[in-house]
Amino acid sequence: MSRFFVVSSDCHAGLPPEQYGEYLDPEFREPFKLAFAAEVAERETASRLFMVDEFNKVWKEENWDQLQGAWDHDRRMKMLDGDGIAVEIIFPDGVTEHNTPPFDAGLGLGTEGVIPEQQWAGARAHNRWLVELCQMAPERRIGLAVIPLLWDIDEAIAEVRWARKKGLGGVLIPSMWGGFPAYHSKRYDPFWQACVEEKMVVHFHAGPAPRQDYFMPEADGSVPVGAVGIYASEAGWWIARPITFMVWGGVFERYPDLRAVVTEGACMWVGEWAHLMDHRWGAHQVNAKMGDFTSHLKRAPSEYFYRNCGVGASVLDRREVDERHSLGLDCIMWGSDYPHPEGSWPRTPSEMTDKLRGLPEKEIAAILGGNAARIYDIDPSEFTSVVDRIGPELSDFVER
Amino acid sequence: MSRFFVVSSDCHAGLPPEQYGEYLDPEFREPFKLAFAAEVAERETASRLFMVDEFNKVWKEENWDQLQGAWDHDRRMKMLDGDGIAVEIIFPDGVTEHNTPPFDAGLGLGTEGVIPEQQWAGARAHNRWLVELCQMAPERRIGLAVIPLLWDIDEAIAEVRWARKKGLGGVLIPSMWGGFPAYHSKRYDPFWQACVEEKMVVHFHAGPAPRQDYFMPEADGSVPVGAVGIYASEAGWWIARPITFMVWGGVFERYPDLRAVVTEGACMWVGEWAHLMDHRWGAHQVNAKMGDFTSHLKRAPSEYFYRNCGVGASVLDRREVDERHSLGLDCIMWGSDYPHPEGSWPRTPSEMTDKLRGLPEKEIAAILGGNAARIYDIDPSEFTSVVDRIGPELSDFVER
Repeated sequence: MSRFFVVSSDCHAGLPPEQYGEYLDPEFREPFKLAFAAEVAERETASRLFMVDEFNKVWKEENWDQLQGAWDHDRRMKMLDGDGIAVEIIFPDGVTEHNTPPFDAGLGLGTEGVIPEQQWAGARAHNRWLVELCQMAPERRIGLAVIPLLWDIDEAIAEVRWARKKGLGGVLIPSMWGGFPAYHSKRYDPFWQACVEEKMVVHFHAGPAPRQDYFMPEADGSVPVGAVGIYASEAGWWIARPITFMVWGGVFERYPDLRAVVTEGACMWVGEWAHLMDHRWGAHQVNAKMGDFTSHLKRAPSEYFYRNCGVGASVLDRREVDERHSLGLDCIMWGSDYPHPEGSWPRTPSEMTDKLRGLPEKEIAAILGGNAARIYDIDPSEFTSVVDRIGPELSDFVER
Repeated sequence: MSRFFVVSSDCHAGLPPEQYGEYLDPEFREPFKLAFAAEVAERETASRLFMVDEFNKVWKEENWDQLQGAWDHDRRMKMLDGDGIAVEIIFPDGVTEHNTPPFDAGLGLGTEGVIPEQQWAGARAHNRWLVELCQMAPERRIGLAVIPLLWDIDEAIAEVRWARKKGLGGVLIPSMWGGFPAYHSKRYDPFWQACVEEKMVVHFHAGPAPRQDYFMPEADGSVPVGAVGIYASEAGWWIARPITFMVWGGVFERYPDLRAVVTEGACMWVGEWAHLMDHRWGAHQVNAKMGDFTSHLKRAPSEYFYRNCGVGASVLDRREVDERHSLGLDCIMWGSDYPHPEGSWPRTPSEMTDKLRGLPEKEIAAILGGNAARIYDIDPSEFTSVVDRIGPELSDFVER
């Protein structure tokens, strides 16, 4: 019986917010207590802009027992096994975004109104807890350290080295740089270098976006109509953007072993985005007046992308699957997005087969786990017994 | 002999900068003189970031006589006739961006460091001169009034009405809104209403982009490597973005007769961008947690776009032509980009035939002029004698 090796490129874990207190450095526990009520309230206001309370309430009530796998080891193992996932990549922010690290150290990693020391404290608290979670099943979990990279590069590097020592396998960094230099700047070279040395994959995850553009109130104080639609239409662009900067900045030229991943921003954009960069890179009349801006790149931009990067394609669409060859089959990594309601869980087995049915076995294997194995340096042969026990069966993917 | 009716959706005109002085309101002439030297110097520093001096020098030297059509009526008529263009849409900023209106009232229309009264004065000076240029051949020229929309909506509306009375046919407004509400806000409704009443087509033209992201100096003061490549790869996105906001904000729902055009941002993006908005608009699990953000739009986002908008596809690529049906044949409007070196001039006839050769006659006619005729409300039958004299011949487009 033939089964697939599956990596979920997009899973989330987070403590119930009040429990983060004990993972904070002592000097931040009092500020945490004081700020906690306000922070939870603020977070709920922010999420109400986006999210319908009823939908999320129903979602939680219907799935509450298994949703606690957001922080509970046993339930989480049950979820992994039930979904057929051999290895999961773990981002912060658990159940519908409420289980997020304190002090704005969650997926957004914004800079506005943030106190750097506090954001670092929140990130470290999450990273410490995540180490514990991952150590309970180190072969099944690749945890991503939260790194508020912008404030201080040396501090970021120290956390990368600590995280690797503790068994984490990658980093989540801000997708937007506020008033700091963007990621084509040499400022970040020592950080990329450290990520290469420690074999830590760099991640950008959907969420960050210029919300003030969408939500600046109307004259009467109301939220402008269309704000959420604009966010939903742009969110993917904002997390692919750092890769545009890194490619053109020559980051992958200088650090050929650096790996970077863009997660939950769909993948339909990849082909045309890569082509556009190559088109600009090609020497022709359209570019001539802007001078030589390409010769520092020995390869076409798309070559760096496909060599060094992956796409965490949670919420994969059948249309994207049909376009897989024009997008680049080798970069597409399936993900479940557990425990978020937009993901495949708790319908993962049927979602998976619906989306990939009829593809050649090799291509299903690449999307479900092979591509991630390459990016994350996982050896699938070490998972034979797990796959034999829980992996989805080839026969389920055969066109009927 | 069958010839095509051609509209260039993208031409530029502008006075040599010092000559704008006499078109300024008197109180701005002294500040203009004082600021002139500094402004020209600043503009040249800014353009050096992008442009190779040698290339532009050679370009100007080789083409100087005809380039003066940027402001000279006779030379401009010769260019139009030579290129086979019956009607041209005229944006500001002439020869390689140096013939731009004073006080930052050119294509960029930025807000940072700008004094609103001065920018308005610069815009009015350009608009006054443009009226004169257009009146010399009113049937061949559709001039676009520069409108620094963000500062004061009533002032913008007054200029729209003035410009229509003087025979201009559209407006160029900022593509970026600085700290002001974005274009989904109801703040701009009276302006859209005025544009509908006066039949003024709203335009966004390539150029504006968050340059500080690209050019923030490295620690040693140098320009970061890759900055220009990033700009070139993003520039199109930044001018399509206002349309995303307008579509989701319901602007085209409330103003079904409003017309808007995105110019010189290529057109390869159109199909997938429209599809992504429709995908977000569709009700499904992926969107559910964000609530109902679609029911204010009676139609799919793409329907508004294709009904109300056009794409000024100067620097048209053969690959885009091959994809014309998936992009939307009816929105693609050919443009020459005279007198910019990235455009088709002075090789327009061969460029035109190279890019469109082998297409069905009806499709060539749509791209060269039919689509623009619909957007700009032009009656091609009024141009029979001009077309008979200068229009490109069908036989040149036949596959050999």
